[in-house]
Order: sequence, then structure tokens, then C-alpha cells
Amino acid sequence: MLDLTKYKNALALRLKEEVTTKEPRTLYEPIDYILSLGGKQLRPVLTLMSCDLFGQDYLKAMNAALAVEWFHNFSLIHDDIMDEAPLRRGAPTVHEKWNLNTGILSGDAMLILAYRFFEGYEPPLFQELAQLFSKTALEVCEGQQYDVDFESRNEVTVSEYLKMITYKTAVLLGAAVKMGAIVAGASEVSKQSIYEFGKNLGIAFQLQDDYLDAFGDPKKFGKQVGGDILANKKTYLYLHALEHAAENDRNTLLIWFGTKTDAPEKVAEVKAIFERSGTTEATRNMIEQYTQKAFEVLEQVQILEDQKNRLREFGGALMNREL
Amino acid sequence: MLDLTKYKNALALRLKEEVTTKEPRTLYEPIDYILSLGGKQLRPVLTLMSCDLFGQDYLKAMNAALAVEWFHNFSLIHDDIMDEAPLRRGAPTVHEKWNLNTGILSGDAMLILAYRFFEGYEPPLFQELAQLFSKTALEVCEGQQYDVDFESRNEVTVSEYLKMITYKTAVLLGAAVKMGAIVAGASEVSKQSIYEFGKNLGIAFQLQDDYLDAFGDPKKFGKQVGGDILANKKTYLYLHALEHAAENDRNTLLIWFGTKTDAPEKVAEVKAIFERSGTTEATRNMIEQYTQKAFEVLEQVQILEDQKNRLREFGGALMNREL
Repeated sequence: MLDLTKYKNALALRLKEEVTTKEPRTLYEPIDYILSLGGKQLRPVLTLMSCDLFGQDYLKAMNAALAVEWFHNFSLIHDDIMDEAPLRRGAPTVHEKWNLNTGILSGDAMLILAYRFFEGYEPPLFQELAQLFSKTALEVCEGQQYDVDFESRNEVTVSEYLKMITYKTAVLLGAAVKMGAIVAGASEVSKQSIYEFGKNLGIAFQLQDDYLDAFGDPKKFGKQVGGDILANKKTYLYLHALEHAAENDRNTLLIWFGTKTDAPEKVAEVKAIFERSGTTEATRNMIEQYTQKAFEVLEQVQILEDQKNRLREFGGALMNREL
Repeated sequence: MLDLTKYKNALALRLKEEVTTKEPRTLYEPIDYILSLGGKQLRPVLTLMSCDLFGQDYLKAMNAALAVEWFHNFSLIHDDIMDEAPLRRGAPTVHEKWNLNTGILSGDAMLILAYRFFEGYEPPLFQELAQLFSKTALEVCEGQQYDVDFESRNEVTVSEYLKMITYKTAVLLGAAVKMGAIVAGASEVSKQSIYEFGKNLGIAFQLQDDYLDAFGDPKKFGKQVGGDILANKKTYLYLHALEHAAENDRNTLLIWFGTKTDAPEKVAEVKAIFERSGTTEATRNMIEQYTQKAFEVLEQVQILEDQKNRLREFGGALMNREL
């Protein structure tokens, strides 16, 4: 049974210490606020666990884990502004609770603070971590920009979409596990392989997110089924169906996605098109492929089989939405 | 005669190389755009010159100089959003030319790219530069937040104002010269002293900016005289006068600054109050004090007298608005 308790406890302890009374409060309060909203903390847990599995004291990876968590929350604050989102984890977003300027500036400060967590490491480690961090952070920005661009573009290909989610979501999971490996002093091949593990798992996870939005069990998934369809979101399913549906289905799809409505028959009809065009099955296959790729590349990681099993369990639990 | 040509030429050459065709264009074009607007490039020139004066090849400081310039432009993009500024250097600001999302995201990318310039240095240098950079960047955010906060606060003290401009403007000048010294391998005392030189010069420069806005020669200053007064800006002069003017003058000042008007008699009356309250003289004294402090601390810098003279010339030219 996968037990993440020790990582989560260590994180909770350290997060408490990071709550600051620094001035100006208007800059630092929103940072404490967004961190206090909780969230699954998948990324920092992955960093700690990865370091642990490579046989190093996982507390040594704590600063790297916090850098990842700060970066993730920086991106949430700025993304929420861009998406004009009123809520985050059921609570008001930073720009809603304060204002636009606070959202921008507190986000900026969080990005800088993320880098500062690496200062606890010796120069070579500092450089290796900060370089991976910068490369990843830039890719996340690129992914977010693609996502913003796609909204106003008519033609987006499935392959462009895969690139977007890879950058926007998956590379940070790859970087999170790789940072644990870096701190643990893992070999180059192990570091690269565990990065690919995290990245591929991240892609599978995001594709499954798209899938569950249309076909998930509403009790288990915790969101409105068909929410993406009603919001005309260009998900993997929509883009795949556009490329593979028969012409009349394709036209119906375009009409529905050009219409703003909450009509339940929209969800039903679109889902029927997803089925007919082979999209539902293709999506399930893609999820399976990326999950398998994550597990395959794990073979190259130079740790014991027992430890690999824990990463497999993590992957399985993540894909089953048990984390 | 102070000649900065070689630094400016080297910068111009490298800036040309940095123009990128990277995708997504919507992320990278605004970066090329803001850099193409020019500006005085005081900060990167200071980094190159500082390295040069410490006897090292100034081209070795080029990456640090670019990090400073990228950071400065990141802060301009985000500040322009916060100030709702339509123009920057006479051209549309990024969020005006594109939109809010582009302004936020291109700014974020520029901040990350700034860090990446340090990757050209060996680990110990990388860490020393990145740490100074992070510390400074965070202070700039704090300064910007104080500035935003002051706008909606009734009571701001002169000492709070000095702290704000120190963080928002001066520390980056300090960091710019210090980075040149770091790359050149200068001693701790030299690095610290040249930082203080840059910082104090920066404070003097910002105070003079406030002063010239009210009392400068409009032909030389290039801005509307009294612009800050008409905009009810809480400058050093305004805050000093509030603390030192006689009660009736203080009340008149409060009334004028509670009024939105372009009436020229507002500028005339406020300037008369600045004179009567001793504010004009006190401001000149403060500028002189900070300039002197910058020059005094230069004594501790371990470089030849000739080289110190070039920094003094730079300071003099900066204060005379000849750069």
C-alpha cells in the first residue's frame, strides 16, 4: 500500500515555518493565502519520494520540493488572472480577494522565492537544480501561452495540443521527480529516465482529465460531467473528433462548439459523436500508451525493483484519482 | 571625458543576437519589442564598466549585464500594467499593443530568461550572481508593492518613501555594479562598497527625478514641469512639505492634492509651499548627501584612482542627466 504520510507530514511542518510576517503584508499575505488553500501537493511529494527512493534522506530534497510548490502556486495565481477565474480550490482567487496588481506582484515574488529555495544547496547542485527549474518554468510559460492562443484559434491539431499539455502540465511533474534524483546524486541515465517517467505520467494524467470530464463517474470525479463540452473547451477529445469524425458529425460538432448553451442535449450529442468517431477509444488508448511509456522508461532508472514498484503504485493511484 | 561607447556597442551587438524566432511568437515577440524600444541601458552598461574597472575583460560580464537588463524590462512590463500606462518610451506598452495576458506572461518569461543568462558562469559564480539577483529582484517587488500601497494611503512618511525608492529603484543599480565586480573576482569589501555606491547614487538619482519634475528646466528635463504635482503624486517633495510646512500651507497642500485639476496655479502654489516649507532646499541637500555618500563609499573600493574617477564621472553625468 502506497503511504505518502511521512512526506506530507514533513511538508506540512516546513510549510508552517514558511509562513512569514515579512513586510509589505500586501505582498506576502496572498502568498500565505494561496499556500493555505492546500491542494494535493503532488509535485513536492514526488520530489521528496524520488530522493527517498534513490536512497538519500528525503529531507535534503525539501528545499527543491518547496521550489516546485512555490512555482506551481505562482503559475496558479497568474493563470487565474488570465482565465478570469473567480475560485481556486473553492476559495476566492488572489486577484478576486485582493486585486489585479496584487495578483501580478505576489505571483512575481513567488517565482523569485522559488529560486531562493535552491540557495540552501552547494554551488554545483544549486546550478543543476536552478537550470532545470528555469528550463521547466519557461516551458510552462510557453505551454500557457499556447493554451491562451488556442482559445482564439480555429484550427488546432491534436499534435499541437499534446505539445501544449506537455509544456503546461507534464514537464513540471518530470522536473519534480528529477530534482529529487539530482539531490540524491543519481546517475545521468537515472535522472533522465525518471524525468521521462514523470513527464509521460503527466501527459497521461492530463489526457485522462479530459476524458473523465466527459465520461467520468460524477461522484468520483468531483466536477460537472460535460463541463468542458459546455465551455466549448478544445480538449483532446474535441480536437481528435474534429480530425476523425464523419463530415456531418464534424459539422454538428462545429455548430455545438460555436454555441454558448447549457442544454444537456449538447453534452449527449457531443459524447455520441466522440463515440462514433472513435475518439473515446482513441483517448483511452492514448492514456494507456503514455502510462505504459512512463512505466517502461522506469526500467532504465537505477533503483531497486521494490522502489520502482512504489513509483508504479504512485502512477496507478494518480491515474485512478486516488491521490 | 566619459566614454561609454565600447560598452554600448558590445551591448547592441549582443542584443541583436538575442532577438529570437522561438515559438510561440505571442510569447517572445513582446520581449523583442520592449527591448527594441531602447532606453538608456544604464544598468547593463554599469555592469560591464564595473567589470572593466576591476581589470577583467568586460565581455565576461555580458551575461550578467543582460540578466539585469532583462529583469529591468520584465519589471517595466508588469509595472506598466499596474500603472495602466499606455506609453513606454513613446511607444505603446506591451499590454496596450497586445493584451493583459500577454503582458503578464511575457513578463514572467523575461524574469525566467534573466536567470538563464547566469548559466554561462561556473557554479560558484552562478550561485553568487543568482543569489544577489534573487535578493534584489524580491526587493524590487517589495518596493513596487510599497509604491502601489502608498497611492491609497493617506499617511506616508518621508522615511517610508526613502525605503520605497531604495527598493524599487536603487538596489538594482547597486546590484548592476556589484555583478560586474563579482564577475571580475573583486574582494568582498570592494563588492560591498561598489554596491553601496550604486545604491546611493540610485537614491540620489530618484530624488533628483522628483526635484526636477517640479523645478527642472523643461527643455533639459524632457517632461512637463509640475507633472507629479498635477498627478497628485506622493513624491519626496510632497511628503517632506506635509511634514514641515506651516499649518495653513499644509492644509492648502492637502486640498490641492485632493483635487484633480490641470490648473497652472496649482503648480505655482504648491511650488511656493515647497519653497516656504524649506522642502526645496531640503531636497537639494538630500540629493547632495546621497551623492556624496556614493562618492565616499567609493574610497573603499580597491581599484586605481583613475578608475574611481570614471565612476565619479559616471555619477556626475547621471546626476546632470547627460546619460
